[in-house]
Amino acid sequence: MDSVNKGALFVLSAPSGCGKDTVLSFLKERDCNVKQSISVTTRKIREEETDGVDYYFTDVADFEQKIQDGYFLEYVKYGENYYGTPKKKIEELVESGYNVFLKIEVEGAGNVRKIFPDCISIFIVPPSFCALEERLKGRGTETEESLDRRLKIAREELSRAKEYDYIVVNDKLDDCVDDVCAIIKAEHSKYSQMKDFVDNL
Amino acid sequence: MDSVNKGALFVLSAPSGCGKDTVLSFLKERDCNVKQSISVTTRKIREEETDGVDYYFTDVADFEQKIQDGYFLEYVKYGENYYGTPKKKIEELVESGYNVFLKIEVEGAGNVRKIFPDCISIFIVPPSFCALEERLKGRGTETEESLDRRLKIAREELSRAKEYDYIVVNDKLDDCVDDVCAIIKAEHSKYSQMKDFVDNL
Repeated sequence: MDSVNKGALFVLSAPSGCGKDTVLSFLKERDCNVKQSISVTTRKIREEETDGVDYYFTDVADFEQKIQDGYFLEYVKYGENYYGTPKKKIEELVESGYNVFLKIEVEGAGNVRKIFPDCISIFIVPPSFCALEERLKGRGTETEESLDRRLKIAREELSRAKEYDYIVVNDKLDDCVDDVCAIIKAEHSKYSQMKDFVDNL
Repeated sequence: MDSVNKGALFVLSAPSGCGKDTVLSFLKERDCNVKQSISVTTRKIREEETDGVDYYFTDVADFEQKIQDGYFLEYVKYGENYYGTPKKKIEELVESGYNVFLKIEVEGAGNVRKIFPDCISIFIVPPSFCALEERLKGRGTETEESLDRRLKIAREELSRAKEYDYIVVNDKLDDCVDDVCAIIKAEHSKYSQMKDFVDNL
């Protein structure tokens, strides 16, 4: 990868409970030049969150102005809250050679793919559906009802796995992160990425 | 990769002097389930070679019978000598979960691609054309004339790099082998390879 300085845009999705946050935070510690794109949201900041790290927090008026200004690569509204992905920042990071990761749900991933057809999309899946159920239960934060709802959504999301370039199983975290690193490395060896290098030989 | 036991067929090419033999021998030492497919040839065995390791050595009559029998995935004749790739053996190894590597020149790679469109092709290139020239000179086995011929062929081969899925630079051997391992790993995370796993979730 030394000889090629172009970055790439990666889209990372996973059903809730598959550990995509943990995978991303471990990935950023590895030697693969990963930056996570930080989304903008209008939802209230939680106690454990930091503005500019977890999200950029803003108000509805500012968010809606940004929509008008074409600031977002994509945005969605869940209930009362907006979530958006800043476009220019991503382009700048990719230009500077970073492998920019967007953590995004299945619907948003589809929108990003339309705008950046070259993006590389990775879907993290649990080793089994039972394991997913166990993990969600293990959190201890789900009621019977919210668990059922999450599992139903997970099934729907899993049925859209075919929209992704890569499927990575999160059984052992380190193996999962290894697999994502391998994907990043391999993508940089793709002919399309290496074309300029070969032409200059 | 634990959860998927299907292997894959990889085609490895490189201009002469790019170190594909060394890359392959190091690759076989890594933990990525690689087997090299051994070709059949009618050329004379060299002192340093072992039958069944470097090639399967046979005579012209046997080779031509094997052609009739559809034994080869592809074969070529260079001067007086035949070289062929046994088809069934490869299929068996892939079925058993091996990542089977075919070391093959550019022309042969094209033939393999026609028969196994799913094969993954990797082209190894030198860090620079000067470096290639230096390596060939360094061997001390080339005359001015044979060096010129090799470099001319190398240029022609490099112009066909675009036929390959991946381009890997062999600057530092370990990095080059790392890159090939990453490609193997990433290919096993492709949706097409993971489809059955996801469907069973």
